[in-house]
Amino acid sequence: MQKSVKHKIVILGCGNVAWHLAKHFSNLKNFQVYIYNHHENVLLNDFRTKLKCSTSDSFNDIIADADFYFICVTDKFISSAVKKINPINTNSIIMHTSGSAKIEELGKLNNIAVFYPLQTFSKSIDVNWNDTPIVIEAKKISVKKKIIVLAKLFSKNVVSLNYKERLKLHLAAVLVNNFTNSLFVAAGDLIEESSVNTKFKILLPLIKQTVIKIENSDPRSVQTGPAKRNDDTVMKKHIKLLSQDRSLKKIYKQLSELIVKQQTKKHA
Amino acid sequence: MQKSVKHKIVILGCGNVAWHLAKHFSNLKNFQVYIYNHHENVLLNDFRTKLKCSTSDSFNDIIADADFYFICVTDKFISSAVKKINPINTNSIIMHTSGSAKIEELGKLNNIAVFYPLQTFSKSIDVNWNDTPIVIEAKKISVKKKIIVLAKLFSKNVVSLNYKERLKLHLAAVLVNNFTNSLFVAAGDLIEESSVNTKFKILLPLIKQTVIKIENSDPRSVQTGPAKRNDDTVMKKHIKLLSQDRSLKKIYKQLSELIVKQQTKKHA
Repeated sequence: MQKSVKHKIVILGCGNVAWHLAKHFSNLKNFQVYIYNHHENVLLNDFRTKLKCSTSDSFNDIIADADFYFICVTDKFISSAVKKINPINTNSIIMHTSGSAKIEELGKLNNIAVFYPLQTFSKSIDVNWNDTPIVIEAKKISVKKKIIVLAKLFSKNVVSLNYKERLKLHLAAVLVNNFTNSLFVAAGDLIEESSVNTKFKILLPLIKQTVIKIENSDPRSVQTGPAKRNDDTVMKKHIKLLSQDRSLKKIYKQLSELIVKQQTKKHA
Repeated sequence: MQKSVKHKIVILGCGNVAWHLAKHFSNLKNFQVYIYNHHENVLLNDFRTKLKCSTSDSFNDIIADADFYFICVTDKFISSAVKKINPINTNSIIMHTSGSAKIEELGKLNNIAVFYPLQTFSKSIDVNWNDTPIVIEAKKISVKKKIIVLAKLFSKNVVSLNYKERLKLHLAAVLVNNFTNSLFVAAGDLIEESSVNTKFKILLPLIKQTVIKIENSDPRSVQTGPAKRNDDTVMKKHIKLLSQDRSLKKIYKQLSELIVKQQTKKHA
């Protein structure tokens, strides 16, 4: 990429990934960011006022003349989004940012790629891009080289994976982020229903320690708790506490069984 | 507690909680730590050599003459452990450190208490005691006052809760620590079976961000992922990937349903 020329980025979509990509590009020199969304909405307003991006709800000439397109929409809308793009610049590259969609969702063009940041994005919470792994895939070597340069403007950790590897990584991300967060929600609900004086916050030092423990150790080796030590007395008390909550009770039993199995595997 | 006199601490048990209590007391002035375990083993050796504690496998006169007893054994052995203690000092206080055992497990004495640190302990990993909440319970006010003083030597966050509240907190701790860690294990297994080039470590920035997000936000409000957005296309792909792993597949489905339910509750 030439340093002196402004590169034009078009982001399709206005969700959390679009937001954090746009925010980062807006802070870089030599990039102009345009947001396309099929209809005007309140989110686009934030892109204009807070990130100073241009936005559009129609595919006009400006949008058609970009260097890089990021399709940041739900998987099932990627293929219809890509059809709207009819780039003037034949060297422009079209990417999606999904961990779970094949590169072929972008069609049969050559200038296509995947740019999947392995991260959880919420609009209001800052992201440390530099540490966030970016998983890439491309059809052509020349395209791959270009998106590696682009990805390195975000992260020190750019990884090239095929679809199957990326999908497994995406599933792993769901386990460690989405499911972990849902356990945090469940724990907060439990605590706050039982006592007016204790709140979810009381769990934060434990949660932080859970992560500190795995920074330098294999998670299997630092597992603790009643399931790990086959402590039926304690597990029965917990299950009794959950008698009114069938789904959490099931999850309790199954995750306890998973722990037992995982610990057996360790010694196998 | 008088500053000039050495207080004698006896810890029953030689597991992870015993280790970290002994380590902290050994670093404090005015405390002598004795470890009792019903048989000599390799763990006791570490207490002697690394923490400079005295150890014993019989209830001799030294052990009988303590100020504070900490029973750090699995719940079902608390009542038999307490029977071994026949303190000379009638003011000595006997505590267990369990989140899930009633105070009555310690018998019908008055000088009994609960000292439950809400934390995950692995021997090789340091603990930030100062942030670790210590949940206490006592029968007598005078005893409670003494263990509050003792607990404050460990932590700035000492909380008095009744049994039911403590048990719920313990269950919440299992959710956010034990189960979260088992999801980390499962994620690591998934990644490492799929690719030689990617390891569990690639998930660390995501895992750290998962915790950063909840430090100042309600976990329900920062939930992301396919279940949250009812993205069946993606969830089906994940479930297909898990076709060989019946138990993880079940857990996937149930935690996804839990997320849907939690998000509905938010808007209710």
